[in-house]
Amino acid sequence: MTVPDRDTKLHDELRGYAAFARVRETALAKMIHAMIRVLDLDRSLNFYRDAFGLDIFQKLDFPDFALAYLRNPENDFELELTLNKGRAEAYTHGTGYGHVAVCVDDLDAEHARMKALGLAANDIKEFKDGDRLIARFFFMQDPDGYKIEVLQRHGHYT
Amino acid sequence: MTVPDRDTKLHDELRGYAAFARVRETALAKMIHAMIRVLDLDRSLNFYRDAFGLDIFQKLDFPDFALAYLRNPENDFELELTLNKGRAEAYTHGTGYGHVAVCVDDLDAEHARMKALGLAANDIKEFKDGDRLIARFFFMQDPDGYKIEVLQRHGHYT
Repeated sequence: MTVPDRDTKLHDELRGYAAFARVRETALAKMIHAMIRVLDLDRSLNFYRDAFGLDIFQKLDFPDFALAYLRNPENDFELELTLNKGRAEAYTHGTGYGHVAVCVDDLDAEHARMKALGLAANDIKEFKDGDRLIARFFFMQDPDGYKIEVLQRHGHYT
Repeated sequence: MTVPDRDTKLHDELRGYAAFARVRETALAKMIHAMIRVLDLDRSLNFYRDAFGLDIFQKLDFPDFALAYLRNPENDFELELTLNKGRAEAYTHGTGYGHVAVCVDDLDAEHARMKALGLAANDIKEFKDGDRLIARFFFMQDPDGYKIEVLQRHGHYT
């Protein structure tokens, strides 16, 4: 099991920055949003607001569909919710796409808050390499069944 | 068709900031990555490096699986690639998850560069409300068939 130790992590970071310098020579693309399709926009908006403090930053409303871009002050990356009006059939999830991850300051408090809100959150788990903690997290699902990973701010996950 | 005009957009932004102030009172979660599963990590790494200047910032390697976190200097949001070692069966995509979007400085140049790299990119399209340009973009797919939207930096998409 080759989980990076501190030196390897430093090496990885240096390698990362070297790669940054290299790719700077080519055109760079900025990741700005991930898009998922939802059945009930209000239901999803309530969920993402209550669970993660994400709110509508822009909405585009058309006869057949609507797009809502959710953001909070923590990042300018957005979650784009697409509502196809009139659709009643649940979307399917396949086996490829995994989840969007967020990090929080106090995982235990957030886990308790989700439960108090009546939101189904799985148990908190730890991902360790021997004694070294890599990640502490729980998974939950949004109203359409998309998985969301909630991570304690730690190590790489900040 | 109620696409925001400038005043509505300003209103939306003010509403957005008001929402920001409100959600600041609750715990905030920072979106830090989206995870997709890939069949051939090197193939995917080459694709994301060549197409979008995204490179490995951290890699976690385990006996059964590996995780690669891709980043570039444009954003600290990461694309997490999960490799389940030994898997040969292609992942399925379902109907729910849409895409990750990136924005670039020069869409025409990037479109031509993708073609020169031998990457399949759909035609450039415009998304308009009457005469007003909302977005100019093209779609492409990564080696596992995940859709990626490439947008000209413009308006909301910056």
